[in-house]
Amino acid sequence: MLPAMPAHPGTPRETPGDAPRRAPAGAAVLREDVTDAIRAAVFEELAAVGFARMSIEGIARRAGVGKTAVYRRWKSKLALVLDLVSAVAAEGLPAPATGSLHGDVRALLEVAAHALRHPVASRVIPDLLVESARHPEIADAIKAALLDSRQGVAAVVVREAVARGELPAGTDPDRALDLIVGPLYWRLAVVRGELPAGYLDGLATSAVAALRAG
Amino acid sequence: MLPAMPAHPGTPRETPGDAPRRAPAGAAVLREDVTDAIRAAVFEELAAVGFARMSIEGIARRAGVGKTAVYRRWKSKLALVLDLVSAVAAEGLPAPATGSLHGDVRALLEVAAHALRHPVASRVIPDLLVESARHPEIADAIKAALLDSRQGVAAVVVREAVARGELPAGTDPDRALDLIVGPLYWRLAVVRGELPAGYLDGLATSAVAALRAG
Repeated sequence: MLPAMPAHPGTPRETPGDAPRRAPAGAAVLREDVTDAIRAAVFEELAAVGFARMSIEGIARRAGVGKTAVYRRWKSKLALVLDLVSAVAAEGLPAPATGSLHGDVRALLEVAAHALRHPVASRVIPDLLVESARHPEIADAIKAALLDSRQGVAAVVVREAVARGELPAGTDPDRALDLIVGPLYWRLAVVRGELPAGYLDGLATSAVAALRAG
Repeated sequence: MLPAMPAHPGTPRETPGDAPRRAPAGAAVLREDVTDAIRAAVFEELAAVGFARMSIEGIARRAGVGKTAVYRRWKSKLALVLDLVSAVAAEGLPAPATGSLHGDVRALLEVAAHALRHPVASRVIPDLLVESARHPEIADAIKAALLDSRQGVAAVVVREAVARGELPAGTDPDRALDLIVGPLYWRLAVVRGELPAGYLDGLATSAVAALRAG
């Protein structure tokens, strides 16, 4: 197989598969697109077979790369999943910035509802929660991903609402996330109930009242 | 092994183990205490090894009964787990009846926090949620157990709050449960975060505000 021409010929780049091009002195740069393909494959493998039965081989096959391309980046499937959780968290959500607390909460709920109803997410999230009982590292990664006190989207929404005088100073963003996302998570991921028409609108109104009352 | 004397000698009762006493004409009565022991064993086995690896043999061993005693009651481990979920749901929670919506919600949160922090529940619940993606029957049983529109504790709390004029008529009990239990579930079972001092008090206040705003 001929390696694809790198986009920037001057940069040493990783080739697809397991036969890296000879790089100039210095560390080879790991190709971002290969990394992305592997991450996407991990997500799909997690959904298809779950963490316990997932293998590096299956991931590599699904990503269309060799196993070495995976091991060059992550030493184990646990490391891979931890990194995936962190990457999803770091990517984060764009802060809605609608100009009102209600608008921001409503926008957050829309994104969260979309994510929770996604068939892949709806299998991967419960699976990782089960594994987190066995692997404290997974529990810690999820916690770090979700408790976003400083940079997370909840923190931004709260900070802006405080600046507008819609919430009292000192409002805790983690508690805000509990109140905004918790009811929706319970309904979609635990009960697996429906979202009746108008449910998200009402939930946004309720969440704002809950935030102000706390 | 000598069978234990039945408490009510006139009633045909099941003996422990696999050698039922000869019962008078008519169906033998299944011993409640054996049923309870098996249910407790299922719960412990679920926590220890999870649904996928759980076996009728392991359950019988843990309950101190023969496999026949299990099969006499349930035809498969799926049937057993479905029945367990329904039994827990039917047993339900006592309605708090503190005389105020805030008091009732606070009492519900206390019970829910206790249950969610129980080491057995904290392993069994996520495991069943994963299995519910594979077994629609489990998803349906969980849904039926949690959506308690008519008889559940949320329905009672809502009905009494409506009667006292604390909530508008027509308040949906399922939505009420989302608003009361959702934030706590998110914090304890998803994020696996702490419960800081005063958290449940504040959550009760927020939930009441959320219920009134909806």
